[in-house]
Amino acid sequence: MSKHVSIAVAGATGAVGREMLEILEQRRFPHSSIRLLASERSAGQKIAYRGEMHAVQTLTHDALKGVDIALFSAGGSISKEFCRQAAGHGCTTVDNSSAFRMDRDIPLVVPEINPEALGPADARGMRAMKNADGTGRIIANPNCSTIILLMALTPLRNAFGVERVIVSTYQAASGAGAKGIDELEQLTRADLAGQEVRAKFFHEPYAFNLFSHNTAVDPQTGLNVEETKVIKETHKIWGDDTVGISATCIRVPVRRAHAESVNVTLKKPATTEQVRDALARFPGVSIVDDRAANRFPTPLKASGKDDCLVGRIRPDASRGKDPGAATLGFDLFVCGDQLRKGAALNAIQIAELLV
Amino acid sequence: MSKHVSIAVAGATGAVGREMLEILEQRRFPHSSIRLLASERSAGQKIAYRGEMHAVQTLTHDALKGVDIALFSAGGSISKEFCRQAAGHGCTTVDNSSAFRMDRDIPLVVPEINPEALGPADARGMRAMKNADGTGRIIANPNCSTIILLMALTPLRNAFGVERVIVSTYQAASGAGAKGIDELEQLTRADLAGQEVRAKFFHEPYAFNLFSHNTAVDPQTGLNVEETKVIKETHKIWGDDTVGISATCIRVPVRRAHAESVNVTLKKPATTEQVRDALARFPGVSIVDDRAANRFPTPLKASGKDDCLVGRIRPDASRGKDPGAATLGFDLFVCGDQLRKGAALNAIQIAELLV
Repeated sequence: MSKHVSIAVAGATGAVGREMLEILEQRRFPHSSIRLLASERSAGQKIAYRGEMHAVQTLTHDALKGVDIALFSAGGSISKEFCRQAAGHGCTTVDNSSAFRMDRDIPLVVPEINPEALGPADARGMRAMKNADGTGRIIANPNCSTIILLMALTPLRNAFGVERVIVSTYQAASGAGAKGIDELEQLTRADLAGQEVRAKFFHEPYAFNLFSHNTAVDPQTGLNVEETKVIKETHKIWGDDTVGISATCIRVPVRRAHAESVNVTLKKPATTEQVRDALARFPGVSIVDDRAANRFPTPLKASGKDDCLVGRIRPDASRGKDPGAATLGFDLFVCGDQLRKGAALNAIQIAELLV
Repeated sequence: MSKHVSIAVAGATGAVGREMLEILEQRRFPHSSIRLLASERSAGQKIAYRGEMHAVQTLTHDALKGVDIALFSAGGSISKEFCRQAAGHGCTTVDNSSAFRMDRDIPLVVPEINPEALGPADARGMRAMKNADGTGRIIANPNCSTIILLMALTPLRNAFGVERVIVSTYQAASGAGAKGIDELEQLTRADLAGQEVRAKFFHEPYAFNLFSHNTAVDPQTGLNVEETKVIKETHKIWGDDTVGISATCIRVPVRRAHAESVNVTLKKPATTEQVRDALARFPGVSIVDDRAANRFPTPLKASGKDDCLVGRIRPDASRGKDPGAATLGFDLFVCGDQLRKGAALNAIQIAELLV
């Protein structure tokens, strides 16, 4: 039946929405029809998809009727307004916002990591597209920083166990959408022209500057919302809230791929070769780790790529001086495309498990 | 006698050299004469200093004769060629290169942290400008990332002890000199104009991109030279090689101030307030830590400032869930001007302890 699936992209004119359309096209996602939905302001825009121009329609409850799977990337409040009601008339949503991620009854899924969260698989590995009573499902797509972190850490968790993680991020503008990228470019252009640089979209100037993540900071814990997402979503995806996680989330002047500096404490000691092998075998991970040539992951290398790139794989120097011995501590540097594996690609991989 | 000290700046046309001249002027450093020295290629250039134009002279052994204190920032090989010979005829050098930092007989000094490494102080806190036999001294200025890290960690070490440090850096172009800043600006300008972007000075493209530090990577440890400097220089400055240090050094598209995400394990538990108080009392540190307004240190805020800015002060979330309890683990975010406290200012503060 997969060729008869009707799909929709809600938030089709945003940075993630456009990436979703590109990936649906590249991966020849099987569907009979597609609706491009966005806010009233964007309605009427024409977007090319599979060789035809499609007019963007206003996202309404009616526009989701008859849709089997809707990919949502229009912000948490939009998801809250539409997804549950759409489920009532049989529309399954894969939601890229944070609206439902921590809800107990909502699966939070990275297909390479926890596809079982989608329920039992059939003989072909497919999961139920709708609930037994015909209502639609809601499936949450994790936060971009979480996905990229866990793509690098899950192979180590599977092989050696993970006790503790200390991560510092270098996050791209795209995480804040097209407006984030626009502000980065506009302020940088103004700065190079010697003009006054004033932040509009972000809370700090973005030209040749970096700053603590633009989400609210909890007055008690001192953690911002992004850091809290990384911690809580990791616990949910791994089904283990005993893993200790420290996260520091920083926005850097890069367009669309996140980098993360990761210090991990394993439960069982491993050698660098064993860690590298575990990473190399994991689907969706590519090793970029050439010490002699000083070639390691960068946001630019990760941009437009499906795989997360992992390099700088080495024993944690704080633990001892013999780099050949098996040890519990490792340092890694990971880069992943925020718009692809961090958002659109992961959502479409989830949808692929349903059709 | 301080007004009769003759000084020289070797590498006067470089990014650090120019910053040295600005700081000597701002701080009214006491001297009777100044020589601006650089490579033959730069000789003859005119530089304004204290309202007069000074011609840059070629750095030669003769040019250092009669100089009491020379501030060197012309690269390690130049320092090796000149500093020891200059010492022979009474010229003391404060060397910003890595040439002598790890030499056993050479003090490696951050004035706020280990002025005692310069020898016994007189009643006014001054240290000997020359050796007892009239020869000059060689004093090493630490690596920029090390200085900025230790400005944030030393107050915690003094109050609570430091067991282990995990640091990820966000390093500015200026660490690679004026050519580094030029490449960042040129490539960014080309990128914004839609032109092809090709790295010349660095090993990776720098426009809207970041990359592992541009120093060689040890094939055995996997650490690059910058990371090894942070570890070894910290051990030397603190006089304690039992502190465990993991460093990941990353170059980011920022002009002239470094940022560092620091996870520290103390020896004695502390509360967030105690940590903040210890930092606030330390000379050369300013707290920028407004959770409600999301205002924290940024490279732009640190640029041109003498103080290192510390914020995001919070308990390490990997260790437990009560943010009010005393704990051994803390996370911090530090920014410091690489050209000032990371290089020129620290060197001049050292010289000030000698005159």
